[in-house]
Amino acid sequence: MKNNNDLGLDTVFRPRTVAVIGASARAGSVGRAVFKNLIDADFSGTVFPVNPRSRSVCGVRAWADINAIPEEEIDLAIIIVPAAATPEVARQAAAKGAKGIIVISAGFREIGTAGRKTEDQLLAVCRENRIRLIGPNCLGLINTDPDLRLNASFAKRTATPGHIAFISQSGALCTAVLDFAARRNMGFSKFISVGNKADVGELDLIRYLHKDPQTRVIMLYVEELRHGFEFIETVREVTGGDNPTPILALKSGRTAEGAQAASSHTGSLAGSEEVYDALFTQSGVFRVKTIEELFDYAQAFATQPRPRGNRIAIITNAGGPGIMATDVTINAGLKLAHFRPETTAALKEHLPAAANIKNPVDVIGDARMDRYRDALSAVLADDNVDGVVFILTPQSMTEIEATAKIIPPLAHGSGKPVVASFMGLMDVSRGAEILEKNNIPHYFFPEAAARAMGALYRYSRWIGREHIQEINLDINQDTAREVIKNALKKGTNYLGEVEGNRILAAYGFPVLPARFAGNAGEAAAAVEEFGPCAFKIVSPDIVHKSDCGGVRTDIRTPEEARLAFSEIMETAGINSPGADLQGIYVQKMAGTGVEVILGIKRHKTFGPLLMFGLGGIFVEIFKDVSFRLAPIRHNGARHMVESITAFPILNGARGRKKCDLAALERCILSLSALATENPEIIELDINPLIIHPEGRGCAVADCRMLLRAPLQKMMDS
Amino acid sequence: MKNNNDLGLDTVFRPRTVAVIGASARAGSVGRAVFKNLIDADFSGTVFPVNPRSRSVCGVRAWADINAIPEEEIDLAIIIVPAAATPEVARQAAAKGAKGIIVISAGFREIGTAGRKTEDQLLAVCRENRIRLIGPNCLGLINTDPDLRLNASFAKRTATPGHIAFISQSGALCTAVLDFAARRNMGFSKFISVGNKADVGELDLIRYLHKDPQTRVIMLYVEELRHGFEFIETVREVTGGDNPTPILALKSGRTAEGAQAASSHTGSLAGSEEVYDALFTQSGVFRVKTIEELFDYAQAFATQPRPRGNRIAIITNAGGPGIMATDVTINAGLKLAHFRPETTAALKEHLPAAANIKNPVDVIGDARMDRYRDALSAVLADDNVDGVVFILTPQSMTEIEATAKIIPPLAHGSGKPVVASFMGLMDVSRGAEILEKNNIPHYFFPEAAARAMGALYRYSRWIGREHIQEINLDINQDTAREVIKNALKKGTNYLGEVEGNRILAAYGFPVLPARFAGNAGEAAAAVEEFGPCAFKIVSPDIVHKSDCGGVRTDIRTPEEARLAFSEIMETAGINSPGADLQGIYVQKMAGTGVEVILGIKRHKTFGPLLMFGLGGIFVEIFKDVSFRLAPIRHNGARHMVESITAFPILNGARGRKKCDLAALERCILSLSALATENPEIIELDINPLIIHPEGRGCAVADCRMLLRAPLQKMMDS
Repeated sequence: MKNNNDLGLDTVFRPRTVAVIGASARAGSVGRAVFKNLIDADFSGTVFPVNPRSRSVCGVRAWADINAIPEEEIDLAIIIVPAAATPEVARQAAAKGAKGIIVISAGFREIGTAGRKTEDQLLAVCRENRIRLIGPNCLGLINTDPDLRLNASFAKRTATPGHIAFISQSGALCTAVLDFAARRNMGFSKFISVGNKADVGELDLIRYLHKDPQTRVIMLYVEELRHGFEFIETVREVTGGDNPTPILALKSGRTAEGAQAASSHTGSLAGSEEVYDALFTQSGVFRVKTIEELFDYAQAFATQPRPRGNRIAIITNAGGPGIMATDVTINAGLKLAHFRPETTAALKEHLPAAANIKNPVDVIGDARMDRYRDALSAVLADDNVDGVVFILTPQSMTEIEATAKIIPPLAHGSGKPVVASFMGLMDVSRGAEILEKNNIPHYFFPEAAARAMGALYRYSRWIGREHIQEINLDINQDTAREVIKNALKKGTNYLGEVEGNRILAAYGFPVLPARFAGNAGEAAAAVEEFGPCAFKIVSPDIVHKSDCGGVRTDIRTPEEARLAFSEIMETAGINSPGADLQGIYVQKMAGTGVEVILGIKRHKTFGPLLMFGLGGIFVEIFKDVSFRLAPIRHNGARHMVESITAFPILNGARGRKKCDLAALERCILSLSALATENPEIIELDINPLIIHPEGRGCAVADCRMLLRAPLQKMMDS
Repeated sequence: MKNNNDLGLDTVFRPRTVAVIGASARAGSVGRAVFKNLIDADFSGTVFPVNPRSRSVCGVRAWADINAIPEEEIDLAIIIVPAAATPEVARQAAAKGAKGIIVISAGFREIGTAGRKTEDQLLAVCRENRIRLIGPNCLGLINTDPDLRLNASFAKRTATPGHIAFISQSGALCTAVLDFAARRNMGFSKFISVGNKADVGELDLIRYLHKDPQTRVIMLYVEELRHGFEFIETVREVTGGDNPTPILALKSGRTAEGAQAASSHTGSLAGSEEVYDALFTQSGVFRVKTIEELFDYAQAFATQPRPRGNRIAIITNAGGPGIMATDVTINAGLKLAHFRPETTAALKEHLPAAANIKNPVDVIGDARMDRYRDALSAVLADDNVDGVVFILTPQSMTEIEATAKIIPPLAHGSGKPVVASFMGLMDVSRGAEILEKNNIPHYFFPEAAARAMGALYRYSRWIGREHIQEINLDINQDTAREVIKNALKKGTNYLGEVEGNRILAAYGFPVLPARFAGNAGEAAAAVEEFGPCAFKIVSPDIVHKSDCGGVRTDIRTPEEARLAFSEIMETAGINSPGADLQGIYVQKMAGTGVEVILGIKRHKTFGPLLMFGLGGIFVEIFKDVSFRLAPIRHNGARHMVESITAFPILNGARGRKKCDLAALERCILSLSALATENPEIIELDINPLIIHPEGRGCAVADCRMLLRAPLQKMMDS
């Protein structure tokens, strides 16, 4: 089914014949609301109400069951009957040829085990009959296509045609969104309440809407997603491939997962919000925090071209709002354009002497339409200008409507994005309406306008991002798998640095030379060979090695080595009586550098999450870390490194030495491969990884891993 | 005038006779809108339209000028005439006895110099005649008092009576807010558009509204404030004194001030947003970030009692929303209440076996009104519960309206705050309306409900905050003033550590023993006396002391001292030829400790802003600093210390030694006194101040100051 170009979704979005099973004339009933919405929207196909107890519904001939309908095939069945009856009703619909079903009714998975069983039965019927199912437990969907006019929902308001698609996991939000949209003259292409997502979820809809010629931007409201890597792979192409469709997402609701006690640094920091942030970032989905932002940005994305660069011109008739917009412009990663001499000359010619002809251009308070027009023409014609923020505050001479009217033709003719803010004391609503209806996004505050421009630019950067050349990693997967298999065979699920380093070495990590020493002589020989070393007790019974006197560092000579060996064995024996003391892990001391931490935490739904940050207080107190879902590419590794606040410390800020970032990126890619290829690893901390100055590489100084096993011992933090 | 109890504002809020000068019948005119609003609101006093060209306005007898009105006195004049005419019209109104004027017209300060002059003339007329002036350039005001019904604005919507006062610097926002409020059944006590604030500004209005029995919470929209310390002193009493009135503020718009090049760390970090944050924090004003939050919190503050503690019960009929609310509850600083055995018993008795009787209480999907009622009664009666978050998702058995109706009586009878979220697929609007009209705040998402509860608790903590005992500082103000005076007399406005330390010492800062050494012998003697010392060149011509080889540290013996003296003098002489090398500043080395930075940056409007943070990368890269406007008290100093992210480093986190926080707090209070008493200091960095372990004090290791002077040299950063 998924091989079809339309994913089988055309039957739900573009049916010719629709049966409403459970249609009703009863005031206030959902069955009535759905049926009336279909009829009132002037649907271009045919709707058949199905109701065993009525001969007609709202004046339309009704049928006792779907089979009674005197039509050869029904494309879409909308079902509003008690949950328990839905599997049977779906079967009847299938017999009548339906390839799409929308189940509005509630009473499924959301109510517990019994409901989940019903949902599974319903889904099984749909799968058997190659039917795509929307819902259950949803508001329905709307397709505003003027040739079709399908309102298959019980929303109290309808959507006007436009270019924004909205996918919502909350039916309640749908109603609010339609309300909000109407007041801002926003139109929708499709509007889908996904409900429990038994079959059709966000991913299929995104694929479908990406190909929908009516849809220019997708707004997403989600509470939980159920795909990790597949989501990233698919959506990355939608948002950043050919003919890209921007996606804005508002994610609400957290799971309790993040609150579980975690034993590693990575485990404790990698909650589900971090997973979603990573998921959206890696997919090129723009995550917003409020419904307001969702609308603000959708308006801009649906109507404006992407800016080619970040050089913005601001035009205003009042200084204060110009300053506000300037501040936000700069904060949003944009900059004020420097005008070409021709532009400055044109502004000088058309504007009065008191005007400011530099950016932000101030046409001053007594400007009528003509000054605004001349200023806008001039800056839009300037090659140094990538977009315009247009501000108007109504003053006594201001021509609100006339000024609003000049913007759309100039803006659309220029190929550059223009956003506007008409604000002030007098009523600007007519002006705002002219703008909105003519595809110029309008914002109440100049800050919001500038922020929307910043969002457009951020999306441009995603589209135009450079793809760094991938690195060939030298991986010996077999060795790693063997270490893991042996450990699990022995019933161990905690791996310390002895086995951990073997696995890391197999994945190309620069592990420091080390050797197990069973006696003082072997320890001395190792020091002679490696130079200054760290000594760490090896015992399956000791997790907190430092606490029992099991660690010594900077052992420099064979003599020191012999002494240290016996002292450690003795002290550890006293502090951990009965422990099996096997010997000492002798490891070359790492050179100086900046300490970072790398980690893995595997999430049930989304797979392994990678973590990177600076070690010590930076991770403990500032939580200054970045996350990505594995697998990642070179781009992802670089972004992980560059996106922490402390990045300047690695990058040679304030007279520091620049660290070997290439070596660090390679380690992060190795980490990604390790996480992807070894599903047994559920948590891992490499802490610290020491990054030496540029050209000198890096070194793993300590690591620990937790494997998936029946008995999960807590890791030592 | 300000001695009046009502600040003279009763005439603008409670006039008996109102003249509308510029009233008009012309469709679409502001003069018509204002007049019609007054009449349509059914004002209990008398309105007189004034229009020289009409005998009547909208059917009401009009008068050629205010003097022609056949009434002895006019209390309030609302003026809608061209700006230039307003001073004269105000004079006429004064002659007619007006004690309040609202100038709606624009064309004043906001348009530049000419407008500013008109505004000054208008203000002068008002001041002469003891008239309080609202505006100019404003939307007007509304007083919903049912006995008065004054709508003296040209807002397109009116406000319904309620307990929220709204003060807005943006007229445009007023209209949007009224629109928003109507949809959420929110009522207002007063509604004021302050415009240019020539006379009446936020501070007077806050004082007035604090005494207004109708007002329970004040919502503030500001773009700029013009009072610093006075605002804090007054508003702190309003928000946190007897019979407190909570204030919520949305601050928009930034000034260019923050973008000025600054030469010190403090200077570069202390922008105007930081000033406003400090101002609001110190005043107990709750700053919000979006209009949505402003409304969400205002609803809760206007209707709910303050929680006595942070132990919250959640009641829900669906697991997911319960989890969402739990997460936000915890994030908002609240915790889930542990029920008393009686409560658990009651829940067990009334709820089915499948229900969750622990917190969050899940009455499960098929709950009707009675289960909700029993659960709510039980948890509200529990002494371990300080507030309730009530969640409903409509399912087939759910009784939306009946359930909504049981909440208000139970909640209001308990004296505990209750917030609700009805969400879901079916229409909950009737339920929401019942709640809102009966003073239970309703939110679309459970997260918003939990956040509002968190805001109530945060405000409770402000009200109930402990006042730490003040410290007596030992200050020798005269010495400090003399050093400053001498420096300015000599034409110096940059003070390095020699003079800087004298000033700091006079303010009780623990300055390290130091002495000027003019020759090698004096340097050796100082080292002999102090122990290990740092040597720093003293020269009025050298600012970057380290760069020219003018600094050496850890000089331990008289011999080392002699050698260091001559070497420094020689190197500095070579590197800075012609510089006046006066000698060496020999200073005892500081002991070990955590390095922090203290700073001052003086703002034109708000006075000195104090800064505190950890030194080095913490300030440079993480910008992890806190700000307060001086003067502060002991509470403020403690909050400054505790509110940085890195506070655990000072407080002994992870096996560190706890620092001497008492000594640090004392230094911050000294800094406050220094900033307050010496207006010449415009920037100061103490960097670092070294904080020793608890009981061992701290030490100033370096400082620099910039004084106000005609020639402002840049400070060395």
